Amino acid sequence: MPDGANRAGHWVLTLVCTDRPGIVHAVSGAIVDAGGNITESQQFASLDTGMFFMRLQVEAATDRETFQAKLAPVTDRYGMTWTLDVVGRPLRTLVLVSKAGHCLADLLFRQRAGQLRVDLPLVLSNHPDLAGLAEFYGVGFEAHSVVSPEQKLAFERRIIETIDEHDIELVVLARYMQVLSPELCERLQGRIINIHHSFLPGFKGANPYRQAHARGVKLIGATAHFVTGELDEGPIIEQNVVRVDHSRTPAELMAIGQDEESRTLTQAVTWFAEHRVLLDGQRTIIFR
Amino acid sequence: MPDGANRAGHWVLTLVCTDRPGIVHAVSGAIVDAGGNITESQQFASLDTGMFFMRLQVEAATDRETFQAKLAPVTDRYGMTWTLDVVGRPLRTLVLVSKAGHCLADLLFRQRAGQLRVDLPLVLSNHPDLAGLAEFYGVGFEAHSVVSPEQKLAFERRIIETIDEHDIELVVLARYMQVLSPELCERLQGRIINIHHSFLPGFKGANPYRQAHARGVKLIGATAHFVTGELDEGPIIEQNVVRVDHSRTPAELMAIGQDEESRTLTQAVTWFAEHRVLLDGQRTIIFR
Amino acid sequence: MPDGANRAGHWVLTLVCTDRPGIVHAVSGAIVDAGGNITESQQFASLDTGMFFMRLQVEAATDRETFQAKLAPVTDRYGMTWTLDVVGRPLRTLVLVSKAGHCLADLLFRQRAGQLRVDLPLVLSNHPDLAGLAEFYGVGFEAHSVVSPEQKLAFERRIIETIDEHDIELVVLARYMQVLSPELCERLQGRIINIHHSFLPGFKGANPYRQAHARGVKLIGATAHFVTGELDEGPIIEQNVVRVDHSRTPAELMAIGQDEESRTLTQAVTWFAEHRVLLDGQRTIIFR
Amino acid sequence: MPDGANRAGHWVLTLVCTDRPGIVHAVSGAIVDAGGNITESQQFASLDTGMFFMRLQVEAATDRETFQAKLAPVTDRYGMTWTLDVVGRPLRTLVLVSKAGHCLADLLFRQRAGQLRVDLPLVLSNHPDLAGLAEFYGVGFEAHSVVSPEQKLAFERRIIETIDEHDIELVVLARYMQVLSPELCERLQGRIINIHHSFLPGFKGANPYRQAHARGVKLIGATAHFVTGELDEGPIIEQNVVRVDHSRTPAELMAIGQDEESRTLTQAVTWFAEHRVLLDGQRTIIFR
Repeated sequence: MPDGANRAGHWVLTLVCTDRPGIVHAVSGAIVDAGGNITESQQFASLDTGMFFMRLQVEAATDRETFQAKLAPVTDRYGMTWTLDVVGRPLRTLVLVSKAGHCLADLLFRQRAGQLRVDLPLVLSNHPDLAGLAEFYGVGFEAHSVVSPEQKLAFERRIIETIDEHDIELVVLARYMQVLSPELCERLQGRIINIHHSFLPGFKGANPYRQAHARGVKLIGATAHFVTGELDEGPIIEQNVVRVDHSRTPAELMAIGQDEESRTLTQAVTWFAEHRVLLDGQRTIIFR
Repeated sequence: MPDGANRAGHWVLTLVCTDRPGIVHAVSGAIVDAGGNITESQQFASLDTGMFFMRLQVEAATDRETFQAKLAPVTDRYGMTWTLDVVGRPLRTLVLVSKAGHCLADLLFRQRAGQLRVDLPLVLSNHPDLAGLAEFYGVGFEAHSVVSPEQKLAFERRIIETIDEHDIELVVLARYMQVLSPELCERLQGRIINIHHSFLPGFKGANPYRQAHARGVKLIGATAHFVTGELDEGPIIEQNVVRVDHSRTPAELMAIGQDEESRTLTQAVTWFAEHRVLLDGQRTIIFR
Repeated sequence: MPDGANRAGHWVLTLVCTDRPGIVHAVSGAIVDAGGNITESQQFASLDTGMFFMRLQVEAATDRETFQAKLAPVTDRYGMTWTLDVVGRPLRTLVLVSKAGHCLADLLFRQRAGQLRVDLPLVLSNHPDLAGLAEFYGVGFEAHSVVSPEQKLAFERRIIETIDEHDIELVVLARYMQVLSPELCERLQGRIINIHHSFLPGFKGANPYRQAHARGVKLIGATAHFVTGELDEGPIIEQNVVRVDHSRTPAELMAIGQDEESRTLTQAVTWFAEHRVLLDGQRTIIFR
Repeated sequence: MPDGANRAGHWVLTLVCTDRPGIVHAVSGAIVDAGGNITESQQFASLDTGMFFMRLQVEAATDRETFQAKLAPVTDRYGMTWTLDVVGRPLRTLVLVSKAGHCLADLLFRQRAGQLRVDLPLVLSNHPDLAGLAEFYGVGFEAHSVVSPEQKLAFERRIIETIDEHDIELVVLARYMQVLSPELCERLQGRIINIHHSFLPGFKGANPYRQAHARGVKLIGATAHFVTGELDEGPIIEQNVVRVDHSRTPAELMAIGQDEESRTLTQAVTWFAEHRVLLDGQRTIIFR
């Protein structure tokens, strides 16, 4: 949890490129050149894809343009995909929900408590149930019925409008119980996170707690993952499990599992907002 | 871990029957009648199958015949499936292995340390690699090549001979890397335990660590389960997981996962030997 | 999590007496006599104190007086301390807080979600900060300054009044940052629970996260315990820990630890409300 | 777990100095100059002590002298304390034991399995009990009675002789149940690790499981720490806990805790052998 949000000139930089020698020296050279001091640094070279990943936090009393200009020769030379942001800047985030409030409640509580750096301009839902919760935290809330195909289409248009209107950087499915269209998944790729209420790849699809009960597993879990066109198959960001025993009914498994869902999703969103999540093919790099 | 092994008259009793009122009173009455004192008692009524399960530990200065005679009217009246054993009596156990020694090493170490009450007259293997480990602990070891179908048949015959010869009560597949024939699975049903090196139902079949790496899971695990004719589908006894991150290769996942495999299998065998594992359809009741 | 709250005639019974043979049979006989069916049963005989502890859930279409009358001969004969309650009846609970809202937020959320069966007529605080949170959940809230000894005395009188007025069965210190007087501790013994923000007995007293940082521990934790006259020395009900590393500041440890505090306290209150917590000298029996 | 042991030119470098800007660039420059490629890099700036810590893995087809010569100007300029080693080189390690074999068994098993890169020329003990275990793994074993002060002195002289004779780099107290003299602790500072069978700082001193039982804790644990002159007060390297309940006797707690002891100690030794443990005052930096 970085506390540098209010510190002038605390930057977070992510870099991805094909792995080859000299990258660290070149990058650190540009940072020295910008008058910066590296306060956090993590790197990883993927044997699977041959890519090199880096995340840096840098203290530098400079503005974005100057900093970028210093970095440009290096990012160009190595063909880097990169991001540069201010540490602690709240990410503009749109949350989608249905009826279950535990994930939304946790996101809102932590956002309010200052532990989760996101701006939450709006919650969109296909049910009105959670309006009061959003209202308590002073967050906008819209509910639209999503039963017919036309309504589904209209809801997805509303999502896109909201993204444009509020310049949304991340969409979070906080137990939104509708499958999004492949087009929308494609459009939002790499910036839409779902919480699935099982320990994937076990129990994909509907009613995972019922499946878990039937199979008699001894641990149940939750998985936060990027959404892709393939249901419950996107890159995994975080997973947690909790021990259960034979005496639990499916309904009890669901109640027990909700804690894991909340903390798993909140953790994934927190890491994403801190630029700690990078994609390496179908896998994620998490720089904790 | 009961320490009553050497205490005269410490009994463990398991009972299974269709659930209906009065069972506890009837059973406890028979125990009082036998001069017994209940020191541990667990019960469970399954909503899935309508069955009632009970495990009791009873101190009673009586012999088996007398005790059984006192219980018979109750077990008859309720149509109970039941077992009666002395607490801490070592279970006669046959272990099957291949090349990987971590599970066998853990079983042998704990058996020697007195934490796992089993008798291990023999280890059977399709490779000679672990002979020295068995020898160190003074346990018999036989290796037979299992490459051709004939050899497989002969090996399974040797398993059955061993079971008869040593009056084996439990067969443990401690990373035995061969699929047993459906006939043998059937014959040993309910008394043969396998350790699978993944968190089932995720990653069934071969190379689970490679699958786990490819899918990018954040926790890997192990599952001890009863063996049935359907590969990796038998009732689950115990599961554990451990956190991993993106930096782990499949080979490293395998090394990390071995600890979970060992402790998961040893735990399952310990519970089984203590008559703590009962079957409720495809699920297990574990009276810990 | 029992779901029997609305089921007519679902009872929970706890019994404590000196251990001797025949207790289970005597109790189950009285239950049969009352037309009851035991649906859950747990027992423990303490080697430390020689006491016997039992918790039963019983389905019986009877009223309290009849049930008690059936039990009376047994509870009298064995000199039992006992309680008889309806499964799922909400426990009347008073919560005390100061400024930190994470524990109160969790209690309120779970109470609202139906996972925690308590009635919360009032929250008392020495600071006004959490008034809005209580209000959102429709729970009364009173704040009184507690700076001078006189104010402290007045505050404790208000606690006692509230207990009397609302017939309070449990007092919860949800990060109430004042030490209660020995007299009040004594008066509420066995029905007042505190959350301490460390893994007791490590880091008693003030600023446990600062202490944890200084000592360089690799896990931080929280402890829910009964309050006694001796600070942070009462019987422990539940503990949890979470892994941390060298990079965490005391402020970050505090933020990380709050999750453990919330879930540990909520768990302890849940168990207490379900009559799962019994006292065995300085230790607790938890019938989960 | 680095697998680069046999790869020519895979180096591990640790650096400690007062924190100031430009360190990363200076170090990476020297590495580029030596023809090296950074494959792993971790750093930490301590707010407590103002020190900067770095651990690097570098692939470089160079010899030690050349590499050192390239690094010297940087390490000199910044006044760095540093180490340079080959990744995966086995650390020469002396193990001290008494009667309990679980920690030694785990160290030996993992060393043999190639998971723990240490050379174990000798095990020293004050009891002969574990001679057979050492022999099985082909490791030398000496037992000397340590009852009188003279014997204790002689034993410590034998420790020092062994260290000199085998050029020992790390001493491991694997449940060695004697307190070492302050002189020896001082002499071996920073290269002697103990396993304490409690979750420090709780339950220092003797019989921690008995203390844990008396206090009624719900989790028991183990702590691997550097040995200093103050008993059980040295910098903590690793800690683990496991859940227990009221039904456990002190003897059972001990049996349950042994697993945590073994894996905690083995983990600490593994990290130390991989140069992942650095000292920051009374705290450790662990670059996992």
